Amino acid sequence: MSDNIQQLRDYSTRLIRMGESVSLLFWDQQTYMPTGAANVRAEQIAVMSEFIHKQRTSDEAHKLLVNAEADAKSFDPDSDDARLVAQTRRHYDLMTKLPSEFVAELSRQQALGHEVWVQARKENSFAKFAPTLERIFDLTRQKSEYYGYKDHIYTALLDEYETGTTYTDVVNVFSEMKPYAVALAHAIAASTNPVDSSPIIGEFDIPTQRALTLKVVKQLGFDFNRGRQDEAAHPFCSNASRDDVRLTTRFDRTYLQQALYASLHEAGHGMYEQGSPERLEGTILAGGTSLGVHESQSRLWENLVGRSRSFSKWVFPIVKDHFPQLKNTDAEGFYRAVNKVEPSFIRVEADEVTYNLHILLRFEMECELLTGKLAFKDVPEAWNAKMTEYLGITPSTDSEGCLQDVHWSEGLIGYFPTYTLGNLISAQLFHALRREHPNIEADFETGDFAPVLSWLRENVHSHGAKFLPHEVVLKATGEPLNSKYYVDYLNTKFGDIYAL
Amino acid sequence: MSDNIQQLRDYSTRLIRMGESVSLLFWDQQTYMPTGAANVRAEQIAVMSEFIHKQRTSDEAHKLLVNAEADAKSFDPDSDDARLVAQTRRHYDLMTKLPSEFVAELSRQQALGHEVWVQARKENSFAKFAPTLERIFDLTRQKSEYYGYKDHIYTALLDEYETGTTYTDVVNVFSEMKPYAVALAHAIAASTNPVDSSPIIGEFDIPTQRALTLKVVKQLGFDFNRGRQDEAAHPFCSNASRDDVRLTTRFDRTYLQQALYASLHEAGHGMYEQGSPERLEGTILAGGTSLGVHESQSRLWENLVGRSRSFSKWVFPIVKDHFPQLKNTDAEGFYRAVNKVEPSFIRVEADEVTYNLHILLRFEMECELLTGKLAFKDVPEAWNAKMTEYLGITPSTDSEGCLQDVHWSEGLIGYFPTYTLGNLISAQLFHALRREHPNIEADFETGDFAPVLSWLRENVHSHGAKFLPHEVVLKATGEPLNSKYYVDYLNTKFGDIYAL
Repeated sequence: MSDNIQQLRDYSTRLIRMGESVSLLFWDQQTYMPTGAANVRAEQIAVMSEFIHKQRTSDEAHKLLVNAEADAKSFDPDSDDARLVAQTRRHYDLMTKLPSEFVAELSRQQALGHEVWVQARKENSFAKFAPTLERIFDLTRQKSEYYGYKDHIYTALLDEYETGTTYTDVVNVFSEMKPYAVALAHAIAASTNPVDSSPIIGEFDIPTQRALTLKVVKQLGFDFNRGRQDEAAHPFCSNASRDDVRLTTRFDRTYLQQALYASLHEAGHGMYEQGSPERLEGTILAGGTSLGVHESQSRLWENLVGRSRSFSKWVFPIVKDHFPQLKNTDAEGFYRAVNKVEPSFIRVEADEVTYNLHILLRFEMECELLTGKLAFKDVPEAWNAKMTEYLGITPSTDSEGCLQDVHWSEGLIGYFPTYTLGNLISAQLFHALRREHPNIEADFETGDFAPVLSWLRENVHSHGAKFLPHEVVLKATGEPLNSKYYVDYLNTKFGDIYAL
Repeated sequence: MSDNIQQLRDYSTRLIRMGESVSLLFWDQQTYMPTGAANVRAEQIAVMSEFIHKQRTSDEAHKLLVNAEADAKSFDPDSDDARLVAQTRRHYDLMTKLPSEFVAELSRQQALGHEVWVQARKENSFAKFAPTLERIFDLTRQKSEYYGYKDHIYTALLDEYETGTTYTDVVNVFSEMKPYAVALAHAIAASTNPVDSSPIIGEFDIPTQRALTLKVVKQLGFDFNRGRQDEAAHPFCSNASRDDVRLTTRFDRTYLQQALYASLHEAGHGMYEQGSPERLEGTILAGGTSLGVHESQSRLWENLVGRSRSFSKWVFPIVKDHFPQLKNTDAEGFYRAVNKVEPSFIRVEADEVTYNLHILLRFEMECELLTGKLAFKDVPEAWNAKMTEYLGITPSTDSEGCLQDVHWSEGLIGYFPTYTLGNLISAQLFHALRREHPNIEADFETGDFAPVLSWLRENVHSHGAKFLPHEVVLKATGEPLNSKYYVDYLNTKFGDIYAL
């Protein structure tokens, strides 16, 4: 490694370690922080974020980058060092567009916004949240203007989460997915072979649920020596290096599926972070490459693995051990129950068929709020109208409507479409995995998930954030993103379950 | 407030917010952090500590300080602003003596040391800890040399925790306390009215213990809206502002006193931090003034309040509600049990009479290790010899001997004597409080602790860290530190219990 590269790397490692501290402040805020600390926490986060931003855009940072770029000209463009320099340049150019004070203010409002959202959701009152939401959208709009964009304001935001994907790409994905999802949902609604979800509805003691989720997550391959699982109002995964990965989940005493599948989902994120290669640790090439690829990992474990028939054969006896009340069900009954398709209010609980319609709704509303087509006060009404149009059901409260997601309160705008991209990628990856391991699902029946994890380690995790999302998809599957695999997966699976 | 003062204050607030983030990293390390994250956590802490140190000793910090000092000349020397400037000068002068790289290295070794200690204690092997201990003492010795000292190397260390107190002061305190404690312990050993501690020994379910500690701590006046209680291997209290105060406790399934009184103790620390005045928040004058005064708060609640006969009258029925197995005991029996005097191995579980002998042992050993009179490999032997000499008992393992305390592993050397100072101050404060409220203990019987807390708020907490420890003692009690009050307190209390 050249001296210049080493210096660039060392400079950046220090800021990454500080950034990890900020991640922990956010994690703590959502898990253990006492309520009364919300304001001071926002200050702590704002100060740290501003400082990190200043250091990343300092003259010294620029000088180190320019020196490293001079050396990098002679490197293989796919080498770690060349990619490190190129990614640092991309980040530097983006970050220098934002004033440090703006970064501080944005992160302060994100931290404050979270608390207001928690309270508003508890009181079921969007009106309480509206001024905060407007402030966050204003700052977000300002951020897009700082970044600049060619086609649409949304592209500027999306690019932070899914580099290379544009507003038009998302519109195209949804113009394919929407009629397909609606048609499939209609066919299922008309099916003569309905699914009975009653086995997983009832009374399920929370400590026992917790024990069950920990057992399953451990079996998947999540390393509890380098991570943990806690509870949060809205499940997430955060990390402070590959050695400190924090999953969260939430429990519903009356609905067994909630915590179990949220845990599988977050563990998918967590195993991606834990699988980031050691050689990239402490650099900007560590961790996941994008939210879309991240979501492909969580959805692959949650759905392609966790909601498969063969997984049910393994997990059901364990579930029954924890909850003997399921004694009148069998693995097939459990498999069907966790795959019931039915329009519902809460995105994170939505089935695989209707899920993307929830995303479409959010994507459209974000665009309308950003471009001023929709007023903030009208959010609940607009939300409910779209729910009625796409899913045929109307939320009766804000909490089961527009207040359900944590994202907007934390300034995560332009983020939702990555969930749908993640779904598409998950099916494409699983297809590629199955080409190499045609009998992979037989392993699930015995609780052996090592072949899946090791394939993902090799084909996805081992790249860290070195390659852009579309490069990772191409490397792992041999072709660009293709929604065909997801459509085929849904058709086959639900065609079978609902005898279509 | 002058512009210069405001600028000094703003500059410092930002660094305090970052320091609070470091506190949370330490808290997390001792409560929830996965084991595998120990190394990266040490890096996170080192980077942050080095940065904070650099900013506190920067040219800009110096310029702001000099400007503020010019303004402060015309201020009342006891005003907030004058004290803010004076304390900033004191800190600045101390901190500029340490190179930033040294600060980083010290904090890195402190974070790493903690993990090594946890492991060594678990394996009951001092040999595993010895090299770490030696490294930490080397760095500590180096720190004292950077600081400089006149009388004794120990004074340089002590001054960080208890400004104004010297090695000689500590020697003098112990030359008074040691013969007194030994004589009292002997008299008690010869008493014909022994104490029966069997009611608090047995099998006590941990979740029920947890519920009990939370109930009692809440009743004392600890504000759970601005704080919380968790578990740690070695109980401590840390805080990230007055609005985020974290207590920890530990549970012993077989010994009821452990968690209950550790909780009272840490709550005493916590209420001091929560009582720091709002007007000083975010300045270096916020929080507790010294470890000795801090310990006076924890010991006052733990012992002067918590181990009083009147407190037992209130708490015993609650304890019995939680643990019906105590039905054959009464409040007096409980009072006697929690006040049993008996030489024992573990400092934090020691009775009030023998406690200071545990401190003396540590003080002497620290001095010997610092001055090279004692070799690190000989620590267990020296420890056991002193235990035999002072307490007449000999630890059979390192874990019940020299590995019991967390302090050395975290570089907290020169810290232990503040525990004895805290004991003395606690009795002196309680004496002053009782002058104003002669019947204060009658309130304890009804669980009314508001008068104590409000007296402490007014006479101790409201000063934050504005005044030096000896000033606080003088202001609150009308006289300088005087060990007479502690001696009187012990004589009266144990004379009664043991019918001496």
